[in-house]
Amino acid sequence: MKRTPFAAMSCPIARSLERVGEWWSILILRDAQAGLSRFDEFECSLGIASNMLARRLAELVESGLMEKLPYSERPRRYDYVLTERGRDFREVVQALLAWGNRHFAPEGPIMLIVDRTTGVAVEPILVDRISGKPLADPAFETRPGPALGDRGIVRQALIEAARARHQTERRS
Amino acid sequence: MKRTPFAAMSCPIARSLERVGEWWSILILRDAQAGLSRFDEFECSLGIASNMLARRLAELVESGLMEKLPYSERPRRYDYVLTERGRDFREVVQALLAWGNRHFAPEGPIMLIVDRTTGVAVEPILVDRISGKPLADPAFETRPGPALGDRGIVRQALIEAARARHQTERRS
Repeated sequence: MKRTPFAAMSCPIARSLERVGEWWSILILRDAQAGLSRFDEFECSLGIASNMLARRLAELVESGLMEKLPYSERPRRYDYVLTERGRDFREVVQALLAWGNRHFAPEGPIMLIVDRTTGVAVEPILVDRISGKPLADPAFETRPGPALGDRGIVRQALIEAARARHQTERRS
Repeated sequence: MKRTPFAAMSCPIARSLERVGEWWSILILRDAQAGLSRFDEFECSLGIASNMLARRLAELVESGLMEKLPYSERPRRYDYVLTERGRDFREVVQALLAWGNRHFAPEGPIMLIVDRTTGVAVEPILVDRISGKPLADPAFETRPGPALGDRGIVRQALIEAARARHQTERRS
């Protein structure tokens, strides 16, 4: 089944998902952030079929998230390393890690982000870089930007209608 | 093709991805965070086939990310609303939005997180809640937690070997 082209959607979240490809790609990015860079390393870490891994790596290179750097001529072998765009995906991976630890770690955390010197676990939270206020603060909201397309306008109308309905429900 | 059970992997990121299901589910969560709650609203916003949407909503309910609340008896109709666990996924969606705006919005942002009163766009950044330090700070690192399983131990050994190799490369 062909996947719907999320990149065509008028939404930065859908476009991001299109570029990342699929779940395996997120785990490859996770491993690249941890320092893995060779085909064999990703294969062993992920337990993924080699043809699948080759396809995912090619897509990540194609999307500008990773680049191939030769480290051996004979046989020809490559390091797969993150580009700046790929490194910048780190926050998405860290947000997934934090959410996973909060909700799906009944036996305690499997991985933690810690302060190197004190060993104390970090509590990741998304804030506004300028004011330092948590994005969960009701002072913030998501709004359409200047490049909102036709689909986005439909979606925005649905959101406003739903909000009006919720307010009516709360009053009644 | 049956998907590999990521939930069995010894990693909070893989477990999170397993619970979210797939890309459509992330976009459903995005829309629920924006206030949409009805089947028709999700269908119209996403342009998704109704059998696919029904399956994704059922999975999100199953994973404890959404709950079904009847709003009409005849015909029987439901609101699909986020649980606390589902609301808590907000940071992952916001991190995806920020990354998408930074890298895949050549025509300008489609959606923005703004300050309600000033209208100024937020620059989302992940920090440690306690110290306020950005997680990108070299003071922090990801480490195995107490519940690291066998697969995680293998992965950790690969990471340490790769780091040692990178250090050798830097010295030479």
